Amino acid sequence: MVYPDTFEGYQVDGSETWTTFTRREARLVSSQFFYSILTSKQFKPKPFGDYDVDVKIHACGVCGSDVHTITGGWGPKHFPLCIGHEIVGEALRVGPKVTLIKVGERVGVGAQIYSCLDCKQCKNDNETYCRHQIDTYGAIWPDTGVVSQGGYSSHIRAHEHWVFPIPDALETNKVAPMLCAGLTAFSPLVRNGAGPGKKVGIVGLGGIGHFGVLFAKALGAETWAISRTHAKEADCAKLGADGFIATADKDWNESHRMTFDLIINTANSSEGFDLGKYLSLLDVHGRWISVGLPEGSGQEVKSSMFMENGCLIGATHLGSRKEMLKMLQLAADKGIDSWVETIPISEKGCAEAVTRLQKNDVKYRFTLTDFDKAFHT
Amino acid sequence: MVYPDTFEGYQVDGSETWTTFTRREARLVSSQFFYSILTSKQFKPKPFGDYDVDVKIHACGVCGSDVHTITGGWGPKHFPLCIGHEIVGEALRVGPKVTLIKVGERVGVGAQIYSCLDCKQCKNDNETYCRHQIDTYGAIWPDTGVVSQGGYSSHIRAHEHWVFPIPDALETNKVAPMLCAGLTAFSPLVRNGAGPGKKVGIVGLGGIGHFGVLFAKALGAETWAISRTHAKEADCAKLGADGFIATADKDWNESHRMTFDLIINTANSSEGFDLGKYLSLLDVHGRWISVGLPEGSGQEVKSSMFMENGCLIGATHLGSRKEMLKMLQLAADKGIDSWVETIPISEKGCAEAVTRLQKNDVKYRFTLTDFDKAFHT
Repeated sequence: MVYPDTFEGYQVDGSETWTTFTRREARLVSSQFFYSILTSKQFKPKPFGDYDVDVKIHACGVCGSDVHTITGGWGPKHFPLCIGHEIVGEALRVGPKVTLIKVGERVGVGAQIYSCLDCKQCKNDNETYCRHQIDTYGAIWPDTGVVSQGGYSSHIRAHEHWVFPIPDALETNKVAPMLCAGLTAFSPLVRNGAGPGKKVGIVGLGGIGHFGVLFAKALGAETWAISRTHAKEADCAKLGADGFIATADKDWNESHRMTFDLIINTANSSEGFDLGKYLSLLDVHGRWISVGLPEGSGQEVKSSMFMENGCLIGATHLGSRKEMLKMLQLAADKGIDSWVETIPISEKGCAEAVTRLQKNDVKYRFTLTDFDKAFHT
Repeated sequence: MVYPDTFEGYQVDGSETWTTFTRREARLVSSQFFYSILTSKQFKPKPFGDYDVDVKIHACGVCGSDVHTITGGWGPKHFPLCIGHEIVGEALRVGPKVTLIKVGERVGVGAQIYSCLDCKQCKNDNETYCRHQIDTYGAIWPDTGVVSQGGYSSHIRAHEHWVFPIPDALETNKVAPMLCAGLTAFSPLVRNGAGPGKKVGIVGLGGIGHFGVLFAKALGAETWAISRTHAKEADCAKLGADGFIATADKDWNESHRMTFDLIINTANSSEGFDLGKYLSLLDVHGRWISVGLPEGSGQEVKSSMFMENGCLIGATHLGSRKEMLKMLQLAADKGIDSWVETIPISEKGCAEAVTRLQKNDVKYRFTLTDFDKAFHT
């Protein structure tokens, strides 16, 4: 079999277009603008390595990171760039030393494609904190200088540690967003003890937040959704939430003071956020874990915000291979049905997805589909 | 025996004096100013209760809280007020239901004198987070409206749960500051796993910080002191620190990235603090626990500060009775020798102590002494 040595994908050519746009202006840009920027191109992947797996892509979720990247909200990137890191496909080729993945398996790839597996972090299931990590797109492979390219494309090449077999029970289009958004919610839940007897809050009901509700509930925690308004209350009940708090309500925090063990903050913006009120919800030494990476300035914290309950705030970043496999199995075992809207991949499809995601016009995640038609015919 | 129903102490009459001073101005005020404000007065304690213990005071440490309170830095207080909450004395009288303390015992009282002992927090050794807690001074007893008065005085009345037998091996003047500053350092150390195999940093080498070094070392952790300059490096070595970092040095954090499990921040000010650099010292999910309550505005935090290592920041408040007893026993067993300067209590002595403490002119804690001469002759 001849394997492709050139991949094809929809890339953002940010080099000229984006430098004239500030973050704030980019937010206000018309959908027409997005339509013009994702264009089909070919690119060469890094040289195939002994532990690499080539995946023929069948679906790719559309993540908030994709939007932050192409708008320049997270700063300058290595354009032209193919985004996308919620990938499901078929293992097409495996390197001679690969043991974890078999050719022909249905597999997923998330937001990271390499870690050294040799450092203290890697050896402690903290490989997302490996200092040699390579992100799925926009990172530079230090040996060759090749920029990694994401999943709005025909293929992806990743180290086997970052390629995950997908249980049969999970549908390709529905599992794709679990590869980043799902794991981003799942990892801090399990790392911070979400389970029976614990009360967990999920702040922000977007792609990650809806997985937060689904997984917190699947792990057995009493699960509350916390949103600005009541607009998503009915959806949250359908997702399985045991309770709902709308922060637009008067004195919204008062009756819930010191009752939560853990709150996962998935909000993508910290504008107008009264952090002290959220922290007042936490029981003694309860934790507020942020998983979003909002653009712009941060938030002011004072020790007095923590004194009433000795709470902690932090943030996490993806999750380990072990957690990914555990999450996928849990989803299969419990029949977790992520809420996905599908859009066939094309220049127009990519643009529609990122444009609507930027407006939060999605319930609750897009998956780009029909890769065979676009790339593999 | 006739027990005193009026106590005598050095009180701050802040009602007229302080309203004209803003926090910033108060900091610049002359020592003469402090000299004029602590005057000897009599006050009536709350009615003696079934679980109360009256303590005849022999020594009282001088805490940063005392300064924050009398300068108005922590906002309006119930003046006139007697400060001081690092108290050692003799149990003079015990209520009919007291079982924990015997008359004649040498005992300590810290910064809290009551908790309900009935709520979830109290039942989980988190009685410092009880919503019905009463601080040693400046709090209002809800049943009578009496304002609690501190330890720059002849006596103190406290619930037995908040009165602690002092092991014989510990000197009165040296143990006094352990009752607040010591416990404030000790509790977060034990709650966050300081011990053999852990690397612990102590930021800020004041009264609490010097206990941080002493107790982290006594608990078996690799203990590093982190200070702005090298001025206290020799002292920290004498206190037992295994290493020293001066944040005024160029690239001070680089060689220590991701090596600390826990950092206790005892700094009393957040001015000029580059929190991101401190957090970069933490290993994955390492913790930054603040125990000071700086005046003024807080600090800006961004999720990106936490993303490299998934660290957590928080704050704690004092410690439980169990932790207090454990700390005192550890100090007795290990011969922990706190560094104390003594000043005989008097109007002038109180003023000198708070004035010098405000200037950080103390190594590393003042204990007011000679209470017999001042009050009990």
